[in-house]
Amino acid sequence: MPVPTDLYRPSLALLTDFYELTMAAAAWKSGIAGEEAVFTLSFRKNPFEGGFTLAAGLESVIDHVSRHRFDASDLAYLAEQRDGHGKPLFEPGFLEYLGRLELAVDVDAVPEGTAVFPWEPVLRVRGPVIPCMLLETPLLTLVNFQTLIATKAARVCLAAGGAPVLEFGARRAQGFDGALSASRAAYLGGCAGTSNVLAGKLFGIPVKGTHAHAWVMLFDDEREAFRAYAGAMPGNCVLLVDTYDSLAGVERAIETGRWLREHGGELAGIRLDSGDLAWLSQEARRRLDAAGFERTAIMASNELDEHIIVSLRDQGACIAAWGVGTRLVTGADDGALGGVYKLGAVRRGGGPWQHRVKLSEQSSKTSVPGVLQVRRFRHDGVYLADCIYDELTGLPAAPTIVDPTDHTRRREIPAGTPGEDLLAPIFRGGRLVYAPPALEEARRHAARELAALHAGVKRFVYPHQFPAGLERNLFDLRTRLVLEARGLPAA
Amino acid sequence: MPVPTDLYRPSLALLTDFYELTMAAAAWKSGIAGEEAVFTLSFRKNPFEGGFTLAAGLESVIDHVSRHRFDASDLAYLAEQRDGHGKPLFEPGFLEYLGRLELAVDVDAVPEGTAVFPWEPVLRVRGPVIPCMLLETPLLTLVNFQTLIATKAARVCLAAGGAPVLEFGARRAQGFDGALSASRAAYLGGCAGTSNVLAGKLFGIPVKGTHAHAWVMLFDDEREAFRAYAGAMPGNCVLLVDTYDSLAGVERAIETGRWLREHGGELAGIRLDSGDLAWLSQEARRRLDAAGFERTAIMASNELDEHIIVSLRDQGACIAAWGVGTRLVTGADDGALGGVYKLGAVRRGGGPWQHRVKLSEQSSKTSVPGVLQVRRFRHDGVYLADCIYDELTGLPAAPTIVDPTDHTRRREIPAGTPGEDLLAPIFRGGRLVYAPPALEEARRHAARELAALHAGVKRFVYPHQFPAGLERNLFDLRTRLVLEARGLPAA
Repeated sequence: MPVPTDLYRPSLALLTDFYELTMAAAAWKSGIAGEEAVFTLSFRKNPFEGGFTLAAGLESVIDHVSRHRFDASDLAYLAEQRDGHGKPLFEPGFLEYLGRLELAVDVDAVPEGTAVFPWEPVLRVRGPVIPCMLLETPLLTLVNFQTLIATKAARVCLAAGGAPVLEFGARRAQGFDGALSASRAAYLGGCAGTSNVLAGKLFGIPVKGTHAHAWVMLFDDEREAFRAYAGAMPGNCVLLVDTYDSLAGVERAIETGRWLREHGGELAGIRLDSGDLAWLSQEARRRLDAAGFERTAIMASNELDEHIIVSLRDQGACIAAWGVGTRLVTGADDGALGGVYKLGAVRRGGGPWQHRVKLSEQSSKTSVPGVLQVRRFRHDGVYLADCIYDELTGLPAAPTIVDPTDHTRRREIPAGTPGEDLLAPIFRGGRLVYAPPALEEARRHAARELAALHAGVKRFVYPHQFPAGLERNLFDLRTRLVLEARGLPAA
Repeated sequence: MPVPTDLYRPSLALLTDFYELTMAAAAWKSGIAGEEAVFTLSFRKNPFEGGFTLAAGLESVIDHVSRHRFDASDLAYLAEQRDGHGKPLFEPGFLEYLGRLELAVDVDAVPEGTAVFPWEPVLRVRGPVIPCMLLETPLLTLVNFQTLIATKAARVCLAAGGAPVLEFGARRAQGFDGALSASRAAYLGGCAGTSNVLAGKLFGIPVKGTHAHAWVMLFDDEREAFRAYAGAMPGNCVLLVDTYDSLAGVERAIETGRWLREHGGELAGIRLDSGDLAWLSQEARRRLDAAGFERTAIMASNELDEHIIVSLRDQGACIAAWGVGTRLVTGADDGALGGVYKLGAVRRGGGPWQHRVKLSEQSSKTSVPGVLQVRRFRHDGVYLADCIYDELTGLPAAPTIVDPTDHTRRREIPAGTPGEDLLAPIFRGGRLVYAPPALEEARRHAARELAALHAGVKRFVYPHQFPAGLERNLFDLRTRLVLEARGLPAA
């Protein structure tokens, strides 16, 4: 199930940037509304200085595109907008057009959980120019954020080395559906569960939790608080030990564990939430083991991320489960995947596609023209290289892949190397032609994708750069278009 | 209008951490459900290494508390939850209790737009322990994020020095209501408008925008694209000039401006979105002025924040309006305000309140006991100091304020110094007793608050620390409780 935009009342069609609507009005007015365009959603660098990105957000995209419709209140709101001269900004005829508009677009996208790399098309929209433009903002919002969080979760889970990571971020998330979509993306990326009960209900994610400091403080002493919690939750008892003094708390947890055993229960775990987690966890482990609680797990939380988890494990921390909140659900230290949505080609009256490229003042912001697809090559179950190519010209049998930021870095792929295209058809003429996998299946897909990446790509410090680049003809076309636009002779 | 959680279908009661529910079950089971508690929502440091914070999120809190109710599907979901032994985690009697539960709590909070400081109660919840606990997660989510963004917006607007700042962040926001609530908080904090049309519709925020690079690329050349846009939007024409070459784009914008004048329009502005914004804006200004377009505004965007805006202004950039997106709506570089919700006191059977304090392994995480209120003192329209006090003991006529992190930093407030309490009654026994001001009024309140802060507090680099601390009796009580909990003799 996607992050449910059907939780919202009638229309989310206005969840878009204003300029999409002024451009739509200008397209309608100037007579180019009948032209077709193809837009590519891609990003320019992996988040977190990392070596890979996990795509997410497609289910939300499907939901949004499927339900997209301007309702009467949307049109009434737009009719009130005035220009700088106090005149209505939108003509009645345009608003009538919007009221009738159906998004008859073709959408292609990589399935959720797929590993993707800079410059690659993650999603592609083709169709009449106005629907293509109107989708820019919401598609970016949905894909940028969920991709960021799925990627962060994958990194945190890699750091934990197989120990379960629980997403505990709701209270620090950016809004309610920031929380919900983060919980879903975190599970997709490998987390074992969430504290967010609504996310559990909506998406079928296991929900987990311990108790808060407040629980302990409600009682006159910690012993009484632990006993009351254990009595009520004998089969789900994880005790937070740091309200007053962590190691004293461990001792009282052990006492409570003994009491639980006498009553047919078992102390599932303790949680540390402050202080020197490496040392405290070792000392807690020693005390638990000495008291016969070898199977009581030690869980840790407190502003964790992949780097802190790696460091704690390097220090020999005895932590069996990790609760990760703020830095996971907000995608620290990036906050946003810088995904962009760029025009690749246009055509008029069903004629030939004309390639388009944007230059800008910064080379890194130069776009890639074409109707883009990616072929992923593999060898013995490991991903070798990705070749971004233009469907209008096709993929040669033995393509050469050129790094888009350094034309001297090239890779030749022998003919016959196995591979497959990443973008799958999602909508055709506005009709959904894709059956999204269940979240559990998308999560397994993500895990397989990570397993197929070379370890160096998954490293946190100076990761290996996975060879993903432009098919040589596409690279040359792009060069030619840029030089032309600059008024320079082709090389 | 608040960020409309009524956009969601029936129930958001499960938008809470799982442990709130297991604690609620344990409270119900262990017989303490009838006890009363008071919780304080506060934060430990100003975001962005800044000197102040602007409170936001109260309208969303009001909405959430007002609508809070577990519906049948929520209870059915909870009934399915199993403990480690495969037994139902929640007893039917507890679920029946939840189904009947009304949040009969007292809520006090500072109005939106109020300047607040570390340790101060931003919001306070008092009532039966279970409702108080259930509200922890959603209240933190709503207040943490919106407060973060209102504060960021205030900083960006201070940097712009009166020039309008437009919030353009929807595409990089963390989810759809991450976008919506960011737009509202940004406007509250001082932004002049948003690109997010749905935020405009819902909250009455002015919506603004220019056009995208794609608009230019849809045409065979930039001149044609500009002409088509100007023709359709003669009273709202801001042209993006950097699709191919910014200064060539400026020349073509000037041509378009001439054409517009011939047709009774006027070129409102141009937008720069890449490159050296300082130099390009100066050069563009020179060319526009020379061509008689002195009133055409230059707008800039491109990963801006308060620091870049200050730097560009220092460099003499000729920028009349700023479009700020990613770093505003995600609160870069912080991502989250670290707000917490801590138990201050409990009482049983209507007896006396007992103070509670949490120690943790880190001094910075030690909580403040009591039923907290803040008195703000002022002099000649400037805020002097804030005194956090315990309503149970009251505020002395001439209070001494002690820095909670350094007991040697104290400030004495002479008797008769004018001041007022910041927390206002919002709910009494679950009944709303507060009429939230319109967003425009809250925005004016925020502006007045900023005006009442000393310039040093608003500085970005090593800001002056506004004197906000604990009333001396409260400080001493806290010290005593901490020493007691550590088993140490009082000093």
